[in-house]
Amino acid sequence: MLAKNDMLAARNRGWFEGRSIVALNLMSSPGAGKTSLLERTIRDLSPELSLSVIEGDQETVLDAERIRATGSRVVQINTGSGCHLDADMLAQGIRSLDPPAQSVVFIENVGNLVCPALFDLGEQSKVVIMSVTEGDDKPLKYPHMFRAANLLVLNKLDLLPYVNFDVERCIGYARQINPDIEVLTLSVTAGADLDRWYDWLRHQVKPT
Amino acid sequence: MLAKNDMLAARNRGWFEGRSIVALNLMSSPGAGKTSLLERTIRDLSPELSLSVIEGDQETVLDAERIRATGSRVVQINTGSGCHLDADMLAQGIRSLDPPAQSVVFIENVGNLVCPALFDLGEQSKVVIMSVTEGDDKPLKYPHMFRAANLLVLNKLDLLPYVNFDVERCIGYARQINPDIEVLTLSVTAGADLDRWYDWLRHQVKPT
Repeated sequence: MLAKNDMLAARNRGWFEGRSIVALNLMSSPGAGKTSLLERTIRDLSPELSLSVIEGDQETVLDAERIRATGSRVVQINTGSGCHLDADMLAQGIRSLDPPAQSVVFIENVGNLVCPALFDLGEQSKVVIMSVTEGDDKPLKYPHMFRAANLLVLNKLDLLPYVNFDVERCIGYARQINPDIEVLTLSVTAGADLDRWYDWLRHQVKPT
Repeated sequence: MLAKNDMLAARNRGWFEGRSIVALNLMSSPGAGKTSLLERTIRDLSPELSLSVIEGDQETVLDAERIRATGSRVVQINTGSGCHLDADMLAQGIRSLDPPAQSVVFIENVGNLVCPALFDLGEQSKVVIMSVTEGDDKPLKYPHMFRAANLLVLNKLDLLPYVNFDVERCIGYARQINPDIEVLTLSVTAGADLDRWYDWLRHQVKPT
């Protein structure tokens, strides 16, 4: 099953490369702030970058409606009892999304810190988003996700005064699992430190 | 695979019944507070109730160590790349846990709001724990979990002033998915409203 997925992911990757599209796979626990980060990013970076979104959820079109309200192109995929997106679902999603050449496609995976880590979608980079309300030991307890990710976005820094969470310890654990992982800390709700995330996105589009 | 799991779960259920053991399957997203709830519960309810724990995580024995520090009997199961406990893992876990008759066994599942909902372990009740930091739309977006659960514990009420979360709306969504679900709101960290959880546990042991 994984071998078949890898073939389809390779084809997606080729399609994205052929159209000079940067595809980013966003993964996290439920409620870590993936959709909020995308809403804010689209409002702040359009039209500098052409952005569209593929939303993955077990049920509902709630997230697609939130993205649509920003004016961005969006497609919702419902996985039913499925716990992750796979390369075949993504292929169907990009067919109906029809993203323009030289654009950025965000893939918001099902909220799940486990299964999505195992399925290549053909993305350029994998981003794991984590909230400071989740506890700083999560990189050790869910190592597959943190090993797979190129970037860790630590969100909800505005809640740090109210929870028991050691930012440095969490980053240390993430680097223990994956020495190459990049790390950004920010707060979408408070609008804090989003510039570094935007710079990271610009660098994905145009590596210098 | 599910049919084989159901057979093994039935056997676990019989074993628990044979020893008059109440087994409770605790499920949630990563970081919703399952382990903290158990630590606090063991400290407050022992020795009134005899409590032991089976810990499920992809990796590490961190949670088992936290439970062991309370003085409770505990066994850690590591699932590796697996995203949930199954009835066979639980059967092995209870063999090494060797819980006494007329006791309560808490099964702390892998932090995942998706896959654990599909696997019967032979437990008496399923408890889903959710934190107010996760967003009030989660019952609609992960309906399998909320449909499977007998009880919803809404945790981290102490963080309510700092997040955008409507408690009544969340409970309404949960009841829309599962009209029979019981709901408790509490804060483990603040030690608030734990009594109703303890009463629910006592009622599981001795239904009146």
